Amino acid sequence: MTDFIEVPRGLAGVIVTETEVGDVRGEEGFYHYRQYSAIELIQKRDFEDVWHLMLKGELPTVAQREAFIAEVTPLRHLPKAVADLLPSLTVSVPMEGLRTALSFAAALRGMKPVLDIDEETRLADAVYASAIVPTILTSLHRLRQGLEPIAPRDDLAYAANYLYMLTGEEPKPEHARAIEAYLMSTIDHGFNASTFTARVIASTGADMGAALVGAIGALSGPLHGGAPSRALDALDAIGTPENIDSWVRGKIEGGERLMGFGHAVYKTDDPRSLMLRDVATSLGGHRVEFAKQVEKRVVEILAELKPGRNLYTNVEFFAGVVMEDCGVPRDMFTPTFAASRVIGWAANVLEQARDSKIIRPRAKYVGEVPPVPVPPIAE
Amino acid sequence: MTDFIEVPRGLAGVIVTETEVGDVRGEEGFYHYRQYSAIELIQKRDFEDVWHLMLKGELPTVAQREAFIAEVTPLRHLPKAVADLLPSLTVSVPMEGLRTALSFAAALRGMKPVLDIDEETRLADAVYASAIVPTILTSLHRLRQGLEPIAPRDDLAYAANYLYMLTGEEPKPEHARAIEAYLMSTIDHGFNASTFTARVIASTGADMGAALVGAIGALSGPLHGGAPSRALDALDAIGTPENIDSWVRGKIEGGERLMGFGHAVYKTDDPRSLMLRDVATSLGGHRVEFAKQVEKRVVEILAELKPGRNLYTNVEFFAGVVMEDCGVPRDMFTPTFAASRVIGWAANVLEQARDSKIIRPRAKYVGEVPPVPVPPIAE
Repeated sequence: MTDFIEVPRGLAGVIVTETEVGDVRGEEGFYHYRQYSAIELIQKRDFEDVWHLMLKGELPTVAQREAFIAEVTPLRHLPKAVADLLPSLTVSVPMEGLRTALSFAAALRGMKPVLDIDEETRLADAVYASAIVPTILTSLHRLRQGLEPIAPRDDLAYAANYLYMLTGEEPKPEHARAIEAYLMSTIDHGFNASTFTARVIASTGADMGAALVGAIGALSGPLHGGAPSRALDALDAIGTPENIDSWVRGKIEGGERLMGFGHAVYKTDDPRSLMLRDVATSLGGHRVEFAKQVEKRVVEILAELKPGRNLYTNVEFFAGVVMEDCGVPRDMFTPTFAASRVIGWAANVLEQARDSKIIRPRAKYVGEVPPVPVPPIAE
Repeated sequence: MTDFIEVPRGLAGVIVTETEVGDVRGEEGFYHYRQYSAIELIQKRDFEDVWHLMLKGELPTVAQREAFIAEVTPLRHLPKAVADLLPSLTVSVPMEGLRTALSFAAALRGMKPVLDIDEETRLADAVYASAIVPTILTSLHRLRQGLEPIAPRDDLAYAANYLYMLTGEEPKPEHARAIEAYLMSTIDHGFNASTFTARVIASTGADMGAALVGAIGALSGPLHGGAPSRALDALDAIGTPENIDSWVRGKIEGGERLMGFGHAVYKTDDPRSLMLRDVATSLGGHRVEFAKQVEKRVVEILAELKPGRNLYTNVEFFAGVVMEDCGVPRDMFTPTFAASRVIGWAANVLEQARDSKIIRPRAKYVGEVPPVPVPPIAE
């Protein structure tokens, strides 16, 4: 047990596993789901196709696609016991409600440890969890607003149904397609703390629900799931084009971080940001034009004040603009992100479940050297 | 992002963090909580003293101990909303019920991300979670039996109150002390997959509840939380002393693992096993004598058939005997373990929260090299 292996803090750069789920190439501004460019998938396929790709390993044929839609559509309806639980979960933010509700839904379904079940049953658990999450989240949102939850509509595809359950109105096709593009872009994104959490839990052989609930917890951390609404808050604070320069310079000179700019991995344009800017542009409107003005000046000023840092807009900036345009309220930005990311987590859990090795690193004890004699209790 | 660091599978031996919470020295058969031998603490102090030590960093004085007991005693009572939730959680095993109930209790309390609150508030969340878990678990157990939950009794200490809430009867002092010793012995045990899970989630800045709920999920995995009841099942299967040899040889020759024997870290006697054998011996009875006979022969046969492997009884073997003697049913063995381990997890979360570095390793993509052009959907 003295064979310690020293690595960078936070396991940065340390390979914990091999994966076929996907990856990010930060230098190239490129990321992929399995062997396909994520952006090309968004341009050429629907959400359901990519959902199938991530969980079942391949893009569906027409027949497979129909079968998959027939499989997931009834699963979007909440079991009565889950629906009955939701009103009590509105005491907190939706991510905490989701954590509790998905934990319950998994138990209610009788999800068994991944180690004790076959591949087909694990896959069914993955499909179930990813089908039910949007309904849980939109129901929690409406209950928090004092409104009745809205049941899924079986004739609507994933993204249109998401907006429908949120607002109670069938969305315009361009809004449904815009949100679909956003949701498709966030299903997976290389390795990150929530994906890693899901894999650590799955490596103990625990059930799909346990792994996803842990990942939801990790995503709720401020250093991870973050800040898509804070970028919009910044747009509000700037207000008008003539305020851009003074606001941005003030923030940077005050040492504050600008939400929506910079990324740990991308050192060039974030491909999600470029795609979502196009989506926002096609939706149109004053807000979008203003966001693009702000982006342009912020990137210029960042290049001037922080030369060599290569800071560009990240996914959060135009994601917020797109979601706002489509009627998603700000406190549902992170939950909406979670709705699609569940699919990426589940794909990772399925992969981890095929590996029998528990993930268990070491800690180095650095406290006072034991054994120090236990003193009698002192007055 | 091409700077991959290759390490052993499962991060074995990789140092992920420094810690002052405790450690295990497998070669010496020694483990410690902070600077004190865990076994010596069990011999000289009470559960509440060690609880204080783990969360607050030092053994209490008489006055601190009284204040701590006054702090935790009211927290053992469930808020009405949590109590009202529990009947619906009996659809599954107690660990899954605990996962859901603690997630809810944390949200109900309004636990905030550890990154956004001060040390004192985090500590209060840790105390709260560790105080409430035994009541959740014993309530779930009784509800599953069709019995009414039993409220905590404020005049009973942690361990006696645990048995009281489980059985509805004030336990004999020797049973209370035996379970107290078991619970004290399992508060922490070096780094393990559930403790690591808690720290990964905490490293994103998420709240104490998110981290503990993730750890519960990891502990529920068959490769981790495991098998304390399976060791007893083996005693039942053997039945009488004359069957020991043939049963054990049959298992080993059939390539099966013997539950309750062998440990990933200890290559000598597990100090918890030695302590619990003494506790069991002091409780007395036929079952204990039989268990000791089985242990003796199994260790002898393992030494003969697997020379050099140094296989001894681990904590599970006599833990099962002690818990059964004290009236803890087998399906509550792992939950009882979880009740005390929550304190160890919480101590680790408090330590992790002082570190601002997110824990985020990498995965190595090994699938088909992208971008493969996205094909049109095929018939």
